[in-house]
Amino acid sequence: MIRFDSDYTEGAHPSILRLLSDTNMEQTCGYGEDDYCLRAADRLKELCHAPDADVHFITGGTQTNLALITAALRPHQGVISADTGHIAVHESGAIEASGHKILTLPNTDGKISARQIAEMCEAHYDDETREHMVQPGLVYLSQPTELGTLYSARELADIRSTCGRFGLFLYIDGARCGYGLAAESADFSLPLLAELCDAFYIGGTKVGALFGEALLILHPALQRDFRYILKQRVGRLAKGRLLGLQFLALFTDDLYLRISQHADRLACRIRDALSACGCPMLLHSDTNQQFPVLPDDVCEKLSEKYVFSHWQRFDDTHSVVRFCTGWATKEENVDMLIRDITALLKNG
Amino acid sequence: MIRFDSDYTEGAHPSILRLLSDTNMEQTCGYGEDDYCLRAADRLKELCHAPDADVHFITGGTQTNLALITAALRPHQGVISADTGHIAVHESGAIEASGHKILTLPNTDGKISARQIAEMCEAHYDDETREHMVQPGLVYLSQPTELGTLYSARELADIRSTCGRFGLFLYIDGARCGYGLAAESADFSLPLLAELCDAFYIGGTKVGALFGEALLILHPALQRDFRYILKQRVGRLAKGRLLGLQFLALFTDDLYLRISQHADRLACRIRDALSACGCPMLLHSDTNQQFPVLPDDVCEKLSEKYVFSHWQRFDDTHSVVRFCTGWATKEENVDMLIRDITALLKNG
Amino acid sequence: MIRFDSDYTEGAHPSILRLLSDTNMEQTCGYGEDDYCLRAADRLKELCHAPDADVHFITGGTQTNLALITAALRPHQGVISADTGHIAVHESGAIEASGHKILTLPNTDGKISARQIAEMCEAHYDDETREHMVQPGLVYLSQPTELGTLYSARELADIRSTCGRFGLFLYIDGARCGYGLAAESADFSLPLLAELCDAFYIGGTKVGALFGEALLILHPALQRDFRYILKQRVGRLAKGRLLGLQFLALFTDDLYLRISQHADRLACRIRDALSACGCPMLLHSDTNQQFPVLPDDVCEKLSEKYVFSHWQRFDDTHSVVRFCTGWATKEENVDMLIRDITALLKNG
Amino acid sequence: MIRFDSDYTEGAHPSILRLLSDTNMEQTCGYGEDDYCLRAADRLKELCHAPDADVHFITGGTQTNLALITAALRPHQGVISADTGHIAVHESGAIEASGHKILTLPNTDGKISARQIAEMCEAHYDDETREHMVQPGLVYLSQPTELGTLYSARELADIRSTCGRFGLFLYIDGARCGYGLAAESADFSLPLLAELCDAFYIGGTKVGALFGEALLILHPALQRDFRYILKQRVGRLAKGRLLGLQFLALFTDDLYLRISQHADRLACRIRDALSACGCPMLLHSDTNQQFPVLPDDVCEKLSEKYVFSHWQRFDDTHSVVRFCTGWATKEENVDMLIRDITALLKNG
Repeated sequence: MIRFDSDYTEGAHPSILRLLSDTNMEQTCGYGEDDYCLRAADRLKELCHAPDADVHFITGGTQTNLALITAALRPHQGVISADTGHIAVHESGAIEASGHKILTLPNTDGKISARQIAEMCEAHYDDETREHMVQPGLVYLSQPTELGTLYSARELADIRSTCGRFGLFLYIDGARCGYGLAAESADFSLPLLAELCDAFYIGGTKVGALFGEALLILHPALQRDFRYILKQRVGRLAKGRLLGLQFLALFTDDLYLRISQHADRLACRIRDALSACGCPMLLHSDTNQQFPVLPDDVCEKLSEKYVFSHWQRFDDTHSVVRFCTGWATKEENVDMLIRDITALLKNG
Repeated sequence: MIRFDSDYTEGAHPSILRLLSDTNMEQTCGYGEDDYCLRAADRLKELCHAPDADVHFITGGTQTNLALITAALRPHQGVISADTGHIAVHESGAIEASGHKILTLPNTDGKISARQIAEMCEAHYDDETREHMVQPGLVYLSQPTELGTLYSARELADIRSTCGRFGLFLYIDGARCGYGLAAESADFSLPLLAELCDAFYIGGTKVGALFGEALLILHPALQRDFRYILKQRVGRLAKGRLLGLQFLALFTDDLYLRISQHADRLACRIRDALSACGCPMLLHSDTNQQFPVLPDDVCEKLSEKYVFSHWQRFDDTHSVVRFCTGWATKEENVDMLIRDITALLKNG
Repeated sequence: MIRFDSDYTEGAHPSILRLLSDTNMEQTCGYGEDDYCLRAADRLKELCHAPDADVHFITGGTQTNLALITAALRPHQGVISADTGHIAVHESGAIEASGHKILTLPNTDGKISARQIAEMCEAHYDDETREHMVQPGLVYLSQPTELGTLYSARELADIRSTCGRFGLFLYIDGARCGYGLAAESADFSLPLLAELCDAFYIGGTKVGALFGEALLILHPALQRDFRYILKQRVGRLAKGRLLGLQFLALFTDDLYLRISQHADRLACRIRDALSACGCPMLLHSDTNQQFPVLPDDVCEKLSEKYVFSHWQRFDDTHSVVRFCTGWATKEENVDMLIRDITALLKNG
Repeated sequence: MIRFDSDYTEGAHPSILRLLSDTNMEQTCGYGEDDYCLRAADRLKELCHAPDADVHFITGGTQTNLALITAALRPHQGVISADTGHIAVHESGAIEASGHKILTLPNTDGKISARQIAEMCEAHYDDETREHMVQPGLVYLSQPTELGTLYSARELADIRSTCGRFGLFLYIDGARCGYGLAAESADFSLPLLAELCDAFYIGGTKVGALFGEALLILHPALQRDFRYILKQRVGRLAKGRLLGLQFLALFTDDLYLRISQHADRLACRIRDALSACGCPMLLHSDTNQQFPVLPDDVCEKLSEKYVFSHWQRFDDTHSVVRFCTGWATKEENVDMLIRDITALLKNG
């Protein structure tokens, strides 16, 4: 079986494994205070033009979201998210387990707008009984979104401005940050994220690392005592250097961007081949996730050879499915998928 | 500087790195449902004579403790622990952050007794206002303890019996399980732990893995829906196979036991050399942690060349320090340490 | 100003004040273990034909909901509620603060159906990644609903049966229970609630008491150690007898039903008078809350003399408002309101 | 049976009942925003010389402690308390259930010292691994203490100064505040509490009210959004005016002080009579709680006629017991108790 069901089906980029192996017998202190973590943090701060950022390396995305949101909210506050947001759907209630309501807004292609956020806040503060309701405290976005789409620089700036108006923190989940940066249509950059956000993370797990995310905290109020909260809520990796080393490797010689471009290019090849056959897409994406609408019998035949995700039912005879490429996806597998799917669609 | 300050100063045992490298480009599903995790789980169940155990691989000890204790306690219950227990001291209040009080008992050489547990429970249930106090729900032990000592099989059986009497779950933190099993004085075994405990974990992070602990859940009430709780409270590793692979390597050809014996033997060499110089120990340990009482000027000189932990003040001129060996500790470094410390003590 | 904005604008029914006054200097033990609480509990168990129920008297509805839901759910479970449910909207995130997600379903006239509940549960258990989502654990209804409507006995029985099928607890918030029981269309009874629910409460605060709700717990698993959870999560009233005494008074000589009938009758008079003028209602209610659609200028004029709640905007020139009667509402005030509103509508 | 087991055995002072009765049929808005609450708040601010305080009326002490501590602490912080503190012992783990560890210090006669607090903080901040431990965030005292003793003005000032040095909030639980203010040895006042504390409460439940505590918040950071937290964590009383009315009555014509003096005087009469018989006391108290050491056979005989609390075992034949007087204690019952106990001790 050939897998297109996620971007974490393989291990790590070989240059990461090599670095881990080369440094294996060195002795360092633990919990992320070693030299490798310091160097990786410095490199990210430089790339983001954010010398005053605090950088924390964390094992996974759910943990990163949980720790940051916990640090940011007072007990009576909630987090604004698209109803498709990862924290709202796929983290088993981790945010609620930390005591906070998720205030969901209906998404458009995975995104929410500054206007929706403003309307939610106005409704809250206009209500005389607002103290009986959850106060919005932070906006959670993902870039790219769960649906592979991207916020434009303009949209992000508008949201930032709305956050300022209502005293909200702005936090961006960058689990697939690389695939966003590498996209053809992208008009944002790491320095822009650092300028607009109070915190954001650059994902490693889905972009070539064994595991690990790099959280940059820009706002001083969120920086304060964050390491306590990290240890308390999600634990810290004893051999913390493993995280620093992986990000050093990813951010050497543009590796992070190069492997992301590879994935995006292959995903767009799949998209274009499908479109050429007249297959509609759920939405337009130029990152590593594509959501075609396929006849059910085509899906069934494809499933004998490929693993991919059923996303949602489209109509009685069609489904939306997801094909996901990654840093490790092989060109020949994409060629084969395109051949097979094209044949099935034509004969369907 | 030569480090004796912890058992997680190096990377992983080379056979682990090799296995990760050999399987790197394979595609598997995520979150611990791959074949490697299944095989590792089967191997541990066999070793523990526990075919009905549920096995979960988790990235670290704090996370393992948090998830298991969260799953086991109802909201009004607390966990009984030695006052030196890891959860009571060094997890930044993670257990309290999940809503539960830690009911501490004074330790003797890091251990608590069945009798102490029984007295705490009797005092609770004898009190007419017990509903205004936290109800004991689970006993947390570590084997070996934070001080390197071991519970005997008899002590464990007594505690198990007391737990039965008061409706308490019994859970053992085996972060350094290998160093316990390998100790000369050990009269317990993995099957015994599986027989007596409702849950326990076999530590990887401190015994040769990059990271990872293997939690065995024996009691069906704790098995139920545990994966939900794991995801919610501490996250699950996307590339879950990394955990399974490491435990497969550790439990091939007795590697886990062999590297633990190596560490214990070196620690005992340090202990015996110090004792031969008349240096008192805080307590008797035959695992990988040793706690000698050293003159402060000796400590200071040693610190120029070695890293080790200050444990507690002993008197105006002496401190208790901790030397910790590990699977990767080199014999020649132990030789050198013994030479240096012996010389300092004789000239002191 | 004359208030029609809630059913808790006055103090308590005079027979309650009298009983408090008559027993004021008696000495009793605290925390609800006195004779008055025991007698009140016995009376409610008899009325509900539920000799094995546990009865707890609690100061308010938010606290009752919080304590019961906390006792019922395991950490990874959530509570199913209408999107208009009190816990979902007006309790400042109290349920989330206790760690649990509220799984909302769209309401129809304030109600949800057995079918909606079944579909939510099926979607959950059909999903392969269900462990990354919150597991439904309990269904929360209110009777009457937030919109004054009532579930029929048949609807309740269907929901009970669905709960059985998916292992869900069923809990009913009866803050306005009396106004439901007294309604003309009501085909449910206290014994029916006791038969169908795992727990429900009979509201005092909104039905003539100074404060207080009587929670009946039917399911043994929820009864266990509930007093611990009550103390821990919401506190218990030191002078607990105040609660028992009030429920004794309310359930003597049918007082609870009589004052509820009074309120319902007056609310229906308002409803009928408005309908007679051609004023549409948001929905049909025969309990103590009525939701007419009024022209904005009529609302404005009425506001000079009466206090009532703005509920939602209807269109550019009309609003839905709420008139609420209670045990203490005076007939002459209702007469006057009807006269004024009729005049305004006719001249409008 | 005559009760000396607590100060909440009777209802409320008659002037409170009268005021509730006189205002019973008035209509007001709910949740503490009515005129009575505003007037009561103004009166307390005036008495405390604290025009900028926020005053909140809350139904009980456990709820008050929980809400204030929740508002004050960030997730990784804990509260410093005497090991005898009410929050540490008798609130069923309510503070831990809100996520925070209680950092206990050994008490001396129910009190802790500025020096103990400073040493705990120094130990925390001196530790290199402090991020793995709970950070002290707030000091919790009670005045009078659980053992009836009082902090002097000097002791309070020293603690305040230590709090300043380590960035700790200072909060005082005044459940029995009246009995402290009325004590002969008291050298503190309400304005002093308002000057030194970031928040404190004046207890009603144990000093003549049906229920209710008045929380004064001085520090602006704790004032912010406190009503949200109150609603979320412990609920707010729908008929909030009941709380305002009671405090208006208590703080009219010095009622609060007068009834407290009455209770203290009677408690001291018991103390002096016992001392005159040579009966030792656990400690010196001049508030409403007295802790004599009595022979077990005397205790047993007394128990046939009086209810009082067993506090702790003293030796094989003696126990420490607690006699508690209150605003409602009758002089003739104290006379009788003294006669009986004196006779028993002399014949013993």
